[in-house]
Amino acid sequence: MKTITLEDAAKRLLENDNFIVLMHSSPDGDAVGSAYGLCSVLRSIGKKANPLCGDKIPDCYSCVTDGFELEEFDGKFIVSVDLASTSLLNGNAEKYAEKVDLCIDHHFSNTGYAKEGYVDGNASSCAEIIKNLIDVMGLNITKYTANALFTGICTDTGCFKYSSVSPETHRIAADLMEKGAESSRICKIMFDTKTRAKLELEKMVLETLEYFGDGKIAFIQITDEAMKKSGADTGDTEGIASIPCQIKGVKIGITMKEKENGEYRFSVRTDGECDACRICGNFGGGGHKAAAGCSIFKEHDAAKADMISVCTAALGE
Amino acid sequence: MKTITLEDAAKRLLENDNFIVLMHSSPDGDAVGSAYGLCSVLRSIGKKANPLCGDKIPDCYSCVTDGFELEEFDGKFIVSVDLASTSLLNGNAEKYAEKVDLCIDHHFSNTGYAKEGYVDGNASSCAEIIKNLIDVMGLNITKYTANALFTGICTDTGCFKYSSVSPETHRIAADLMEKGAESSRICKIMFDTKTRAKLELEKMVLETLEYFGDGKIAFIQITDEAMKKSGADTGDTEGIASIPCQIKGVKIGITMKEKENGEYRFSVRTDGECDACRICGNFGGGGHKAAAGCSIFKEHDAAKADMISVCTAALGE
Repeated sequence: MKTITLEDAAKRLLENDNFIVLMHSSPDGDAVGSAYGLCSVLRSIGKKANPLCGDKIPDCYSCVTDGFELEEFDGKFIVSVDLASTSLLNGNAEKYAEKVDLCIDHHFSNTGYAKEGYVDGNASSCAEIIKNLIDVMGLNITKYTANALFTGICTDTGCFKYSSVSPETHRIAADLMEKGAESSRICKIMFDTKTRAKLELEKMVLETLEYFGDGKIAFIQITDEAMKKSGADTGDTEGIASIPCQIKGVKIGITMKEKENGEYRFSVRTDGECDACRICGNFGGGGHKAAAGCSIFKEHDAAKADMISVCTAALGE
Repeated sequence: MKTITLEDAAKRLLENDNFIVLMHSSPDGDAVGSAYGLCSVLRSIGKKANPLCGDKIPDCYSCVTDGFELEEFDGKFIVSVDLASTSLLNGNAEKYAEKVDLCIDHHFSNTGYAKEGYVDGNASSCAEIIKNLIDVMGLNITKYTANALFTGICTDTGCFKYSSVSPETHRIAADLMEKGAESSRICKIMFDTKTRAKLELEKMVLETLEYFGDGKIAFIQITDEAMKKSGADTGDTEGIASIPCQIKGVKIGITMKEKENGEYRFSVRTDGECDACRICGNFGGGGHKAAAGCSIFKEHDAAKADMISVCTAALGE
């Protein structure tokens, strides 16, 4: 992948048309906000642009997706946002894996799969980069775009809490609010709204809490049974992975979730000293230093033991 | 109380010496951050200044209070910060109730108890005002002061989530980070750290959840028994009051806490449409539109019924 400047990335977008903007599977707020935000800006100057995700976008992001209709056209210029690796493309997005013209991302672990790319691992979120990109393009940010990008920034920073937040992040948030971003409405939806089912699920998940490594590792499980009993859906599991690492004295928080076909999905959060990306890398996963994920295809107890063992080793590093 | 400008407030501070800076009882992050932040700035120009609170300051604010020693002197100029009413002064702070020279506050409900005052009800936090005040005074913000003020701003805005947050709030946060505020460390302590006891307490509190008013009112209780059983202390109850109002469809969230001497302390949170300050005003309490508190001195069931009844009425307004 040829590394290009933000100015060059802006040029590519201004020169081309008929954009497909790819999102990773299990899209989060940053993927959705970046893709929809970028598409809305491209459309505002008369270009055709569609976001594309192999998965259904969770309802909690309807404040971004509602009313944004897909257009009919053949994709000519393929952009990826917030996409560290093409292994994270699924469904009808997968066919573009080898055809990405421009990658815009903030993952240090970006695998360099595109023809050209702008990757800033120090940006809090991909949406933060998109905001700067729009400024470089000299285009206006509408209220819709401001809301989409604000959603990306606030969700990827745990509402401005993570170490990835810079003074620049806060100033961009301020700018987006002045462009109409409904900060408190978005934050309320993303961070301060729980369905009754989610609250029920959290209670059940807390019952599974176990400690390892002298209390430095906390482990919780989201079982199929808890999902069914609580009536929770996938969107309701959002944020649960951050619970174990919030406990005082815990350095690594693990969340194990039962999936279909013998897959167990692990979310690993750390205090920022232990490297979650490296822990998950042992199992073919990835992410950031303080937050990463991976899947293990083994029996329940074996999968759990493997993860605990790698995390225990990571404590000593 | 004579309303003065920020410039006049700055003048009073520069002209006087031997400051006592008063905080309200049950001090929160904004009270502590504002008082310690202001004192540290006054000390930096050779003046004597002590913060004063009738209550012990909770351990969770030790990142602000640690190493800040009290000086020996007779208070000559009395300042209050984040203090809506002198009825919130207790212990050894109470004796200054009639002697406040300068009040700096962000509560619309401020009762005007001081000789002179600067009250900006639109500021997200008192610490936000103190930051501007320091700029007007033309003084430098040290890393210590930046951390204290950042603590005030982030705690009083639920980490930049509430509707009180303006673009200005984010820009001030950015400035404070550039002055050395350790944003992610502070946020981690204030929002992402739970003792095991707190997690245990939360589980028990969730067991008490009840709905009223067609699910628009959610009610939880922090009983003495739960406090004892979980091993939680007062600091561990922080944030619990926001749980009921986070539930989808809930417009008013009530938290009832058993205190000594037949007192029940209520925290009321609303979706911002119902007026929490008015609800609590019925019982002699106060606060903001979306978050307020009060005490009721009655038997358990009667106190609870009174609050539910006032909240149910507020739903219809």
